[in-house]
Amino acid sequence: MRIIPSISLRLRPLVFFLSLILLMNGAALAERKAADPLPSWNSGQTKQAILAFIKKVADRKSSDYVPPAKRIAVFDNDGTLWAEQPLYFQGLFALDRVKVLAPQHPEWKERQPFKAVLENDLTALAAGGDKGLVELVMATHAGMTTTEFEAIVKDWLATARHPRFRRPYTELVYQPMRELLAHLRANGFKTYIVSGGGVDFMRPWVEKVYGIPPELVVGSSIKTKFELRDGKPVLERLPEVDFIDDRAGKPVGIHKFIGRRPIAAFGNSDGDLQMLQWTADGDGPRLMALVHHTDAEREWAYDRESSVGRLDQALDEAKSRGWVVVDMKRDWKRVFPFSE
Amino acid sequence: MRIIPSISLRLRPLVFFLSLILLMNGAALAERKAADPLPSWNSGQTKQAILAFIKKVADRKSSDYVPPAKRIAVFDNDGTLWAEQPLYFQGLFALDRVKVLAPQHPEWKERQPFKAVLENDLTALAAGGDKGLVELVMATHAGMTTTEFEAIVKDWLATARHPRFRRPYTELVYQPMRELLAHLRANGFKTYIVSGGGVDFMRPWVEKVYGIPPELVVGSSIKTKFELRDGKPVLERLPEVDFIDDRAGKPVGIHKFIGRRPIAAFGNSDGDLQMLQWTADGDGPRLMALVHHTDAEREWAYDRESSVGRLDQALDEAKSRGWVVVDMKRDWKRVFPFSE
Repeated sequence: MRIIPSISLRLRPLVFFLSLILLMNGAALAERKAADPLPSWNSGQTKQAILAFIKKVADRKSSDYVPPAKRIAVFDNDGTLWAEQPLYFQGLFALDRVKVLAPQHPEWKERQPFKAVLENDLTALAAGGDKGLVELVMATHAGMTTTEFEAIVKDWLATARHPRFRRPYTELVYQPMRELLAHLRANGFKTYIVSGGGVDFMRPWVEKVYGIPPELVVGSSIKTKFELRDGKPVLERLPEVDFIDDRAGKPVGIHKFIGRRPIAAFGNSDGDLQMLQWTADGDGPRLMALVHHTDAEREWAYDRESSVGRLDQALDEAKSRGWVVVDMKRDWKRVFPFSE
Repeated sequence: MRIIPSISLRLRPLVFFLSLILLMNGAALAERKAADPLPSWNSGQTKQAILAFIKKVADRKSSDYVPPAKRIAVFDNDGTLWAEQPLYFQGLFALDRVKVLAPQHPEWKERQPFKAVLENDLTALAAGGDKGLVELVMATHAGMTTTEFEAIVKDWLATARHPRFRRPYTELVYQPMRELLAHLRANGFKTYIVSGGGVDFMRPWVEKVYGIPPELVVGSSIKTKFELRDGKPVLERLPEVDFIDDRAGKPVGIHKFIGRRPIAAFGNSDGDLQMLQWTADGDGPRLMALVHHTDAEREWAYDRESSVGRLDQALDEAKSRGWVVVDMKRDWKRVFPFSE
């Protein structure tokens, strides 16, 4: 009877110590699991390359350390942060607006490009070329105040549904990219959008969806005009192009709006090539990456032959320069927030 | 003998208590003194109004509380954060540049507006009007890459001296405004420059001087063009106006670059009126303020009749709407960092 409590007493420190080790291991394991900042990314070279970059630039002891003020990451939006098929969502917004506004414009029934839109005749619409598209944009994006336009965008996003997924467009954002944005910010990065899309089309919703505040959005714009209406100041949206933030316009937009060269840039099409070249040419560690749409089942598969989001020259340059190419099918465990 | 220690003992708690009060008062006094966030401002209504505004919008318990993301404050630069006499400093930079570049342009000796500059003939220069000034700006601000221009600006600031104060231009910044910027940031504000001056002329030095990073600078700009030179991407500065961030252009610039309406705006001239009107028209607590140059001795005194930084209509509107008017002579204990 005596020996058992005695052994027990002698063993107690050991048991305590073992328990502690087990507890610590358990905690470490739980922490490691909880601490995967990119759970929607499959393990592999791509995930590893992205995590390694973020880690080294944020690590004071690393020779690749970059002070927080210089940790600027830029992201294209269409096809990089949210989907862009069957057409840029802002294009679908313009088509919907034409239909909403048509009763006030009976002449549109007989006038291109509006006739094509009202008759859902995409061939005739495409035949109108860029000139037709600009006319559509101006008819749907100008002629109201900035405050009114913001309300129109919010209303559309609240009611419109994507033709394939039957969900609001703001749900067609890429969950892996949302995790990446959050992880970059947790590591002292400022995450900017640098998109060919309209800056005023994006600002009303990107904070809620991506955690990116309006002031960190660079995009295309039409001109606005300040005036006092019965003493009340307004900004009227004019049917005149101000800035096209696409292709060679992206480095121009980055310089104009941010004034610092990014150290990381993410795109998905030839429209992002110059932004990646501009980012790559700075000193110190750099991360250039392209999202390659390779998943026809969960999303879409397209690259060199696509009319929307064509990825051709940029893909070649990425491969030859060793930039990261995210293979959606291979690298993403989950695509949209709503997918399993 | 007995009675004294007895009294002493009975008094001890009182003495202790009194000492505590004295200590606390002393500490509070020291704290009040140490904690004055605006030591270069004289006590009075102006300082009080500014401090009260900052306090209430940052106080969660206040009915005027504003969440940090919306705490946007915008500042004009010339005449608001640094001096602007006898001419906008960027104008003085352009004149200096003409002289530096003259040997490469022998034709300038006979051609206006260059001839006027080279002969220091300000009357002839003024006679050339806006057209002449634009020509001067283009000859001195375009025709190089953005990287080259940044180096030119930095070099000028390192060597040029102000004609009256014989100091680098970056020392002619207002110490009270620097304290205000820091106090706003300490209270969760983002402090932006929104200036008629060139954005690329300001970005190289404002972080060091005001603590304002390049990405929080909105200003006028000329166009730039992206190109690959022997494979190296550059942005070439073109002799073409892109955006004038002055007068009615300031709310346009705020909307374009920031995409949020500020809750506080500081200016000093009629060029800032629309920015203040735009700021004033938002919901919730607002602070609109003008720096009134009233101190010919320590700085300059000018307003309604001045050709540089004219303050006329905005002064009337400030008075009628109860906006804060900072009287430099009365409200500022110290003007420049180097003054006593």
